[in-house]
Amino acid sequence: MAATMKDLAKRTGLGLATISSYFNGGNVREKNRKKIEEAIEELHYEVNEVARNLKTNATKTIGVVIPELNNTFCAEIITGMEDILRNHGYATMICDCRTDKKLEQEAVEFLCRKRVDGIINMPVDTEGGHLKAFQKTGKPIVLIDRKIQGVVCDSVLVDNEQAASDALKLLYEKGHRNIGIIGGPEEISTAQERMKGYCKTMEELNLPVRESLIVHGDYTIQGGVKAMETLVQKNPDMTAVFITNYEMTMGAVIGLNELGIRIPEEISLVGFDNLPFARACNPKLTIVSQPTEKIAEATAGIMLERLEHAGNESGCRTEKLGTTIIHGKSIAQL
Amino acid sequence: MAATMKDLAKRTGLGLATISSYFNGGNVREKNRKKIEEAIEELHYEVNEVARNLKTNATKTIGVVIPELNNTFCAEIITGMEDILRNHGYATMICDCRTDKKLEQEAVEFLCRKRVDGIINMPVDTEGGHLKAFQKTGKPIVLIDRKIQGVVCDSVLVDNEQAASDALKLLYEKGHRNIGIIGGPEEISTAQERMKGYCKTMEELNLPVRESLIVHGDYTIQGGVKAMETLVQKNPDMTAVFITNYEMTMGAVIGLNELGIRIPEEISLVGFDNLPFARACNPKLTIVSQPTEKIAEATAGIMLERLEHAGNESGCRTEKLGTTIIHGKSIAQL
Repeated sequence: MAATMKDLAKRTGLGLATISSYFNGGNVREKNRKKIEEAIEELHYEVNEVARNLKTNATKTIGVVIPELNNTFCAEIITGMEDILRNHGYATMICDCRTDKKLEQEAVEFLCRKRVDGIINMPVDTEGGHLKAFQKTGKPIVLIDRKIQGVVCDSVLVDNEQAASDALKLLYEKGHRNIGIIGGPEEISTAQERMKGYCKTMEELNLPVRESLIVHGDYTIQGGVKAMETLVQKNPDMTAVFITNYEMTMGAVIGLNELGIRIPEEISLVGFDNLPFARACNPKLTIVSQPTEKIAEATAGIMLERLEHAGNESGCRTEKLGTTIIHGKSIAQL
Repeated sequence: MAATMKDLAKRTGLGLATISSYFNGGNVREKNRKKIEEAIEELHYEVNEVARNLKTNATKTIGVVIPELNNTFCAEIITGMEDILRNHGYATMICDCRTDKKLEQEAVEFLCRKRVDGIINMPVDTEGGHLKAFQKTGKPIVLIDRKIQGVVCDSVLVDNEQAASDALKLLYEKGHRNIGIIGGPEEISTAQERMKGYCKTMEELNLPVRESLIVHGDYTIQGGVKAMETLVQKNPDMTAVFITNYEMTMGAVIGLNELGIRIPEEISLVGFDNLPFARACNPKLTIVSQPTEKIAEATAGIMLERLEHAGNESGCRTEKLGTTIIHGKSIAQL
């Protein structure tokens, strides 16, 4: 007959509460953990999590739906969150929806059927329709990076308007006046905020916001290449460009290299994210850096709080984190 | 009372087989899919996958254990595999073990308790102890990128010896004789093979294999920076370096930039992986490119075959894929 938790308690001399805590990811002293693991081995004990889930109605699994796993910003955040959630006994089930609304909808339905305890989502569908059915279950949703107007839930964002403003002011101080921007997709809140920061700061600095200086990219490398080509072609007097995500920053550098335009002698750049890439560029890039580690901590923290103190708190929390500028050598002093 | 599959069949006028196929990720015509989804909505039907799992003993979930999610090679492969597995009705549960054997062991135990139907692993522990218990369940394991001597299972590899040989011969043709290598961790099979390819080819070409030309890195960016510094310091006559993974390639470029050494005038480079990074470098890098898409397809394909024709085939398959060289401007003609 299969061994039970009681058998483990008997073999280890520990209380059932300790054994149960072990399996539920609670705090168990190292000494006791070792004893339990030896007993599990000796008794060939196997937790039937599937059966257990039926009883507790919790699967101890968090669904994560993101636009692109193969995107440094997403990957860094997930790595950090997964560590924290695993340490609390939660698995993460990650779905990459390839920046496709239909796949995103399917991913949420799939996770719903898998009865995940909560969903963390960097949303592609800015209407939020994909989350409505899951939200009816009353289980927590935490949005990262982008908010959705119609969905009332927690979110962890960065101060994108300020980030753009910081980049613009830095270029202004170095004498730049004709400053282009490679923005993101117009329907994404994060992209809107960065664009708003650009426009507001240009006005504050009494610089004309010319339409030809604004290009909306699609957050991909190839999109960045094309956007840079367009900007250069349309603006012979442009001296600097601010690029608003990492993939497009890489693309912008590729574009300038392939056009044979020198950084910073001919065009100055402020990029976004990914310090190692900024260091590997020749010359080193100046970038706006987002606090991916803090985003991961805040997101996992809010999710755990919601799961462990369900219903304690109503209303929704929005955590807004600041960015920093990391200085390279991609800005010329005019 | 909760709606059942029979209710869905009645409402849609479709057969139970079609309804069942829908829930099991099988092929269902778009028209029927729509009908079923409308009926699900109307009847508030909820699949209790947890209960269903108890009955079928399959969770339709594949565990994926990798060293670093925040690693382009891993991320690209997972993105590809997940697409294929999802299309066949399987979820993937991804665990990032941070290149830590203990975390890798815990990840496999965790997936075991979650009763995943199979595990895909890019192993950190080259002894394979972490897979032994899971293997006893008889469920399939597919290894990617690295094989393990003691574990009999399927694996998808690339021809690493040939990859190194191709890189060396290219440098030789351009007149290079003192060629350094930044290898990977000595215990990883992939790193051993690349190193073997280097040594064998150097001998074939009648070039002396000097110890000072060989540095073992740790597959990280910072490891690449340090390794390049060491090589440059120890080998004033070295004209070229072959770097054996992407992160260290990035690190090597950072190292040379920060030492003020020009590529390719002073040092020629052949890097590894990540075409966009190679294009963004100034000058463009020449790289060995691994077929990540094909690796993803082969891995998911073998896993699905094992799951769907369990026990049909004994023995284990090893799929070995070729690499290609993508030419940049990082090799000087001597």
